[in-house]
Amino acid sequence: MQNFIYQNPTEILFGKGMIAEIRVRIPKEKSVLFVYGGGSIKRNGVYEQVKVALKGRKVMEFGGIEANPLFETCMEAVKIVKKEKTGFILAVGGGSVLDAAKFIAAAALFKGKDVWEILRQHGANVEAALPVGTVLTLPATGSESNGNSVISRKATLEKLHFASAHIYPVFSVLDPEATFSLPGKFVRNGIVDAFVHVMEQYMTFSGQSPLQDRMAESLLQTLIEIAPVTLNEPENYEARASFMWSATLALNNLIGCGVAQDWSTHMIGHELTAFYGLDHAETLAIVLPGIWQHKLAAKKEKLEQYGRRVWGVKTAAEAIAKTEAFFHSIKMPTRFSDYKIPAKEAAEKVRNRFRERGDVFGERGDIDGDAAAAVLLARA
Amino acid sequence: MQNFIYQNPTEILFGKGMIAEIRVRIPKEKSVLFVYGGGSIKRNGVYEQVKVALKGRKVMEFGGIEANPLFETCMEAVKIVKKEKTGFILAVGGGSVLDAAKFIAAAALFKGKDVWEILRQHGANVEAALPVGTVLTLPATGSESNGNSVISRKATLEKLHFASAHIYPVFSVLDPEATFSLPGKFVRNGIVDAFVHVMEQYMTFSGQSPLQDRMAESLLQTLIEIAPVTLNEPENYEARASFMWSATLALNNLIGCGVAQDWSTHMIGHELTAFYGLDHAETLAIVLPGIWQHKLAAKKEKLEQYGRRVWGVKTAAEAIAKTEAFFHSIKMPTRFSDYKIPAKEAAEKVRNRFRERGDVFGERGDIDGDAAAAVLLARA
Repeated sequence: MQNFIYQNPTEILFGKGMIAEIRVRIPKEKSVLFVYGGGSIKRNGVYEQVKVALKGRKVMEFGGIEANPLFETCMEAVKIVKKEKTGFILAVGGGSVLDAAKFIAAAALFKGKDVWEILRQHGANVEAALPVGTVLTLPATGSESNGNSVISRKATLEKLHFASAHIYPVFSVLDPEATFSLPGKFVRNGIVDAFVHVMEQYMTFSGQSPLQDRMAESLLQTLIEIAPVTLNEPENYEARASFMWSATLALNNLIGCGVAQDWSTHMIGHELTAFYGLDHAETLAIVLPGIWQHKLAAKKEKLEQYGRRVWGVKTAAEAIAKTEAFFHSIKMPTRFSDYKIPAKEAAEKVRNRFRERGDVFGERGDIDGDAAAAVLLARA
Repeated sequence: MQNFIYQNPTEILFGKGMIAEIRVRIPKEKSVLFVYGGGSIKRNGVYEQVKVALKGRKVMEFGGIEANPLFETCMEAVKIVKKEKTGFILAVGGGSVLDAAKFIAAAALFKGKDVWEILRQHGANVEAALPVGTVLTLPATGSESNGNSVISRKATLEKLHFASAHIYPVFSVLDPEATFSLPGKFVRNGIVDAFVHVMEQYMTFSGQSPLQDRMAESLLQTLIEIAPVTLNEPENYEARASFMWSATLALNNLIGCGVAQDWSTHMIGHELTAFYGLDHAETLAIVLPGIWQHKLAAKKEKLEQYGRRVWGVKTAAEAIAKTEAFFHSIKMPTRFSDYKIPAKEAAEKVRNRFRERGDVFGERGDIDGDAAAAVLLARA
């Protein structure tokens, strides 16, 4: 195992009815910015529950956070926070809303001149943030219990992440019932996102840590087991609870402790979303099998372990095939042709973007622009 | 899954050389009480590393914390803390030293008249505690990353636990190298203790949470895998690191989230330590198979799952036999006769103690004094 430092201060409030718990967790004297997305929370009853819990407080609402939250939108919220001297940000929604709230919280207290520098420096320059609490309505990103955020910029077609200990939510409500009304496509996306989060921390070197490996495999097995159930039975509380808890543990940074991480699938995927507007999870399902194929020799032993323990198959090739078949079984495409996107063009765009920035990713630090292009070319 | 609230604020500093990290983590203006045990840290180099990290601070030392730390000893430390206006407690040692430090931290700020009430009320009356940091030298109890503490009272032969959010360590250093010099018996005890911690949160009802089950099984499999290695090769860093990390995750309260818990083995075991002075882990190895045998019908399905997934056997009886054989393989006895203790006498003593206090334990709330006595009678 590698040395590591791990601290996750987020208080998890898990289960039905737990939204009411936020009442005693936001300091009474603080004014609240209540951040949400496109308004689905007004249709599924979550908005009402939050309003009841916030009764008697000074609350400003800021709706309209988009999927792949925009820097431009967040900066509108930052203006309000500064003007109203907001003391607490409550994010109610999926990972996009949570990521936006975290960025708003950091941007509001940022002392530098150009706020976009937070993203460009991936959070290294974040020295403080307003407290953020969350009510999660879409299990997927793990944002409810980590210090990460991904923000897109419309003007430049950029999608960048930042991380800081200052943006861990102080609390996060995970009520499986708040997810019952999610469209199936969102659930499918969430399953794939959580699955690939595990993979980015697992499918690297062999023999690093037997416990970290097994915990990652536990998450993969559980996601595979509950995926069809929770898609077919949206109001099956137990299945939805397992999905929600799995998605949180997939990226609360615990399973990544002491082991190498990859993240090349995510980094390539972010570019595909920025260029083509694909859903985040859609990009991951295209790229992940491509990265494995491209690094087949290097990842062979770990792919075999994964195949053996999770799927009961013997070879790395079978493990990859099983994974693609799993994605297909939940109606998640894995090829550019499924979206009528020319692979060659996508490969060139990503190659150029990586080259411009000098980016290299992967546990071996060898996924540069050329490697990314080769991966994508093979995903036509 | 049941509703749950989970928060674990302890910062884990894992790996070789991490003791140096404490220098920047204890506020400079605070005087420190440096608490340790019988002096083994002076022989293995840990004491020196800590002293270097504390250089330039006002430090008082308090050595001599015993295994099964005594209330009487802790109260001596509390006197010093009050007199010296100590602002930070640094515990360096195993679970006993850490538990003592947590109790000292809570007792120093306790406003009630009788400090023993903290134990009698199991921490419900703890409203504050001094900050505690730890350097762990014996993986076993999980005390380095939870809010629990167990204290014994010499005068009354009592051994009671308390729990409070206020006594989570602010940081804990887990350096596998600090454990290289441990006597084999301590390592054996630590393995069994961690193993049984997992079991108390796992071997209850079936079908509560597939993820929590698999994470518990991951810990069991890892402990079984690394036990012979870390016993035979004390300086095998990777094996010791896996042992250390497993013991922490076995009782940082994560795997217990959302599921029923048992703890009857521990509660009966505490009495056996109080009456006969057996090591904590020795009592667990006697009691655990007895509880399973006693509740065979109720726990059958879960025992079969455990047997199938962890040992590759089919029946509950085989799962129990495999577990006892595992204990024996690491030289851990599982019968009273191994210690020349009359089972009948032990059964009566525990029956009376449970009756006096009206104690009932177990996930079904049915392990009372009579049940405990029946369990122990069968462990002659």
